[in-house]
Amino acid sequence: MSDKIKIAIDAMGGENSPKKIIEGIKISLKKNKDNFFYLYGSKGLIESEIKKNEINKEYYQIIDTKDIILDNESAFSAAKKGKESSMWKAIESQKENMTDISLSAGNTGALLVISRLILKTIVGINKPALAALWPNKNGMNVVLDLGANIDCNEKNLLDFAGMGSALFKSLFNNKSPKIALLNVGLEEIKGNDVLKKTFATLKNNKNNNFHFSGYIEGNQLMDGNIDVVVTDGFTGNIALKTAEGTANFIIKGLKKSLNIISIIMSYRSLKKFRNKLDPRKYNGAIFLGLEKPVVKSHGSTDALGFAYSIDTCNKIVKANLIEKIKSNLITIDT
Amino acid sequence: MSDKIKIAIDAMGGENSPKKIIEGIKISLKKNKDNFFYLYGSKGLIESEIKKNEINKEYYQIIDTKDIILDNESAFSAAKKGKESSMWKAIESQKENMTDISLSAGNTGALLVISRLILKTIVGINKPALAALWPNKNGMNVVLDLGANIDCNEKNLLDFAGMGSALFKSLFNNKSPKIALLNVGLEEIKGNDVLKKTFATLKNNKNNNFHFSGYIEGNQLMDGNIDVVVTDGFTGNIALKTAEGTANFIIKGLKKSLNIISIIMSYRSLKKFRNKLDPRKYNGAIFLGLEKPVVKSHGSTDALGFAYSIDTCNKIVKANLIEKIKSNLITIDT
Repeated sequence: MSDKIKIAIDAMGGENSPKKIIEGIKISLKKNKDNFFYLYGSKGLIESEIKKNEINKEYYQIIDTKDIILDNESAFSAAKKGKESSMWKAIESQKENMTDISLSAGNTGALLVISRLILKTIVGINKPALAALWPNKNGMNVVLDLGANIDCNEKNLLDFAGMGSALFKSLFNNKSPKIALLNVGLEEIKGNDVLKKTFATLKNNKNNNFHFSGYIEGNQLMDGNIDVVVTDGFTGNIALKTAEGTANFIIKGLKKSLNIISIIMSYRSLKKFRNKLDPRKYNGAIFLGLEKPVVKSHGSTDALGFAYSIDTCNKIVKANLIEKIKSNLITIDT
Repeated sequence: MSDKIKIAIDAMGGENSPKKIIEGIKISLKKNKDNFFYLYGSKGLIESEIKKNEINKEYYQIIDTKDIILDNESAFSAAKKGKESSMWKAIESQKENMTDISLSAGNTGALLVISRLILKTIVGINKPALAALWPNKNGMNVVLDLGANIDCNEKNLLDFAGMGSALFKSLFNNKSPKIALLNVGLEEIKGNDVLKKTFATLKNNKNNNFHFSGYIEGNQLMDGNIDVVVTDGFTGNIALKTAEGTANFIIKGLKKSLNIISIIMSYRSLKKFRNKLDPRKYNGAIFLGLEKPVVKSHGSTDALGFAYSIDTCNKIVKANLIEKIKSNLITIDT
């Protein structure tokens, strides 16, 4: 067990938990047996699901917890009263070095606040950020911040660049990711002051840990030319949700437009394309900037989506993401 | 002629002009004969296209101009040297009350700067904004600002709300449009200070010119529940371009996935859906906040797209947009 990746799981967070959590573990164990799961939540409920899914004892330990943080609770009230919750206890296990990483499908705001309360911020980083994977023509890229920080200064964006490139390296085994700043134009004079300052610093950055490619516009996010897209949490959140909304709108519209014979005729290739865009594959936003890694699964994902976020946890720990972040940070004279 | 809508057209702006401009006029004249076109540009080139398209003399007058503002010129250099250009002369004709509205497919930055230089800002408005139409489940909505103003305060967003609702009323004959602020969440506590202040003022607004629906998130932009989406120019530009990029990515991917028989089998309904999303229908960004209306056609649109922006000009003048804006403005104590 000592060689295994130790994942602390908030088994009560998100829709349909702990059912989907345990089913997700079962799916993930089929391809990868080097994880060990510390399951935080109602022992009775978890055990019943474990039995149904016939998961071997060598892969898990249950830690019975009393409280659950609900999805509609405010982050601060959750943090205040949540010390006996499955989410709190899971993250606390990282502080005690019992586990390597936490994974929760629960309340995002509460997870961010509780993680910051319990786990230390990496020295040199002012604001942790939320990163996620985004599909593109050639595969996937990392985008951050996606909503943890509404207002960001130059230092924050530089930290995001360093953290995002460390994440991309960890997940895709790439030595020098291409980084760009999301902006309203490609010319150096475009954008606000914070972007212009960040651009100048990244342009002159001697650190060879990544390649700075300048600005990127919203319509180029899926072209596949950039590996890490850096933006403030307000803009990142709007971009992510606008892309989701647009994708849903078009896919629904086209579905209605295709008759059943057309769908059958192109079944295989349609399935392949749909598979490429399957949001479950992109499940798992990564909270970056703390001394320990925390992963947030989408609350409404299913067992397969949860299994994908377990894979993300495994890769992050194996690649030693936190050390990569530390060696990636860009220092500026202030 | 005196009862006609007088449209000043920069016949030289955008790709493939003046060819597409004159062809666009021909298309628009087929359904609507109550426009009169003042065509600014190279007389020889325009006359040759007019001949090919057999446009009757009662619909146009050509004003020969010497210069053309290029797409790659900076806005300020264009404004400085552009006094003899087709764009400048077209807008100048509005100041002299010779025309009711201007339409150009040329350099957007130059158009914004030149319009502001020549035409007065409406009293009470600090920053004019660029608005456009966005497809949704039930039809179209207005989104602004799309890039004219990178940094916006509460007053600016309130002006955008007033101007956007006046535009929606003018284009869709609606008495009380539903307005929302683009944000990263729906709860009143979400977002930055500027949004929170604007929310509070709009919530207490006694003006019955529109209905305030609170916040809207990026994934709801196409749901069709909101008529006017208000945001700063940075966020609006990122959202618009991200939506464009996502739509292109998915449509291209699906096209590749459908074999020819599938396309033939569903030809009619696919065409109908494609038609609904045709970007030419949404062509024409409207520059709001000046004493006279100015419309920007997409530079790369074709004759049909240009014809749609002529329709927009016609509706704006007929509905007396500028008066509607003036009666829609929200005043705040500062």
